[in-house]
Amino acid sequence: MAMLGFLKSAGRVARVRNSSPFLWHSLRQVAAPSLLRMMSALASQNDVIFRQLFDRETCTYTYLLADAKTKEAVLIDPVIDLAERDAKLVEELGLELKYVMNTHVHADHITGTGLLKKLVPGCQSVIAEVSGAVADKLINHGETVKFGDHELEVRSTPGHTNGCISYVSHNLKSVFTGDALLIRGCGRTDFQEGSAESLYESVHSQILSLPEDYIVYPAHDYKGNTSSSVGEEKQFNPRLTKPKEEFIEIMNNLGLPYPKKIDISLPPNKVCGLYNLPDELAAKLEN
Amino acid sequence: MAMLGFLKSAGRVARVRNSSPFLWHSLRQVAAPSLLRMMSALASQNDVIFRQLFDRETCTYTYLLADAKTKEAVLIDPVIDLAERDAKLVEELGLELKYVMNTHVHADHITGTGLLKKLVPGCQSVIAEVSGAVADKLINHGETVKFGDHELEVRSTPGHTNGCISYVSHNLKSVFTGDALLIRGCGRTDFQEGSAESLYESVHSQILSLPEDYIVYPAHDYKGNTSSSVGEEKQFNPRLTKPKEEFIEIMNNLGLPYPKKIDISLPPNKVCGLYNLPDELAAKLEN
Repeated sequence: MAMLGFLKSAGRVARVRNSSPFLWHSLRQVAAPSLLRMMSALASQNDVIFRQLFDRETCTYTYLLADAKTKEAVLIDPVIDLAERDAKLVEELGLELKYVMNTHVHADHITGTGLLKKLVPGCQSVIAEVSGAVADKLINHGETVKFGDHELEVRSTPGHTNGCISYVSHNLKSVFTGDALLIRGCGRTDFQEGSAESLYESVHSQILSLPEDYIVYPAHDYKGNTSSSVGEEKQFNPRLTKPKEEFIEIMNNLGLPYPKKIDISLPPNKVCGLYNLPDELAAKLEN
Repeated sequence: MAMLGFLKSAGRVARVRNSSPFLWHSLRQVAAPSLLRMMSALASQNDVIFRQLFDRETCTYTYLLADAKTKEAVLIDPVIDLAERDAKLVEELGLELKYVMNTHVHADHITGTGLLKKLVPGCQSVIAEVSGAVADKLINHGETVKFGDHELEVRSTPGHTNGCISYVSHNLKSVFTGDALLIRGCGRTDFQEGSAESLYESVHSQILSLPEDYIVYPAHDYKGNTSSSVGEEKQFNPRLTKPKEEFIEIMNNLGLPYPKKIDISLPPNKVCGLYNLPDELAAKLEN
């Protein structure tokens, strides 16, 4: 609906450019470079359908992104208990779910990927090759995941787990950080090959190096925040604003309890939720 | 940060218009009307700082909106237990909180308005005059609430309570619907002068009559959805897509239990959370 308007406007710019070189030159002269950049960036921002979804039990955020024109969609970090909600939304919005992507092998919930593959036939599971998990598509730092005319840049952000990746949408000026960077916090580093030093380096070099107005969309928030920005986290993150040695000291002394769901979550998550599920969830997948 | 870029671009358009009539004419000719409208609308969209905040206990959404340039801000439907979180965010973002606004006299939680007035001196409470509640600023259908160069249009949407209002941001193409319209649902109509007929009429005439791409931001969601659109609710809302008589029948037979918190919520909410608080919360306000 609104998307159509934006597409029409973007198309008009293209037509002007092709059919009327003098006016295009005038337009460039008066508006270039910043206005044209703004027009181009905003047109593409508004071409993307975006939804943030929440699981109250584990405080997990799932993200749905789609190309408004082609309807190709990706889902980041779904939760198995809410896979039916997510599949229904995909259907209602008339989307074609291409990839179900995880930022890492979660220890706190079972991914909805396996169940979504059943509910929405044709979609493929995606995870970092470094994670060691089994998926339809294994990806690496520097690659891109495309949906329609849009794409997510894959950045390796290890530290919470060794295979953690963040997805950057330059169109949306957003970064989906998984458990690497949380709002005013970060993922724990005391299991699954976690490393405080590695987390500090990867968050600083791969996430906090993005422009300050990029929106931070984490995999969790426990205080009801839904987003932050790179600039805010650079200024207010109580852990990552510390010098590296102090950060490592903090992370190595959190004294957190053993994660409640890790034993039931890791086996299925290592195969993107396809097998090794608890009986009641396995039944959902088999029926 | 990004806002600065947009402001600069918008300023550039204004300068072109004033200083170079011929080029402005060319620009209008090639781009008008839809491209200029798009540029104008998007520049103002990106002038607004927007945050959605969540209370897990009552599944309430609070919204922070601010003019990125002047820093004037409004907060819609805060929850008393999380007022400190909201005040901290206002401070970190360098905002000047002008109004703390409620969509209605809530029955399910105590508003954070009174505590915010203490935590952020200078802000004023706002509620619909029809609600009968006491506030610094009483508003009516058709009025606007201004913050910086932006404004929210007040629309009367009674039915859940008699004094329910929705706030429309035409810049953000968004409507903050309180408990009138929820995602794939609506507020109950069996207490506080509720009326199913009134709700049906006000939601259809005041909310679902907005353009289909307007984003619906409700006061609650219990399934982890964070937003919807007018078009989606017109198509998929299981109650409001029904004919009026059927809707009234549904609403009058929901058989919902007596709201758990209504007895402790209504007395303080009738004075925007300033008095009549339970002892432990009153202490927060007094200390």
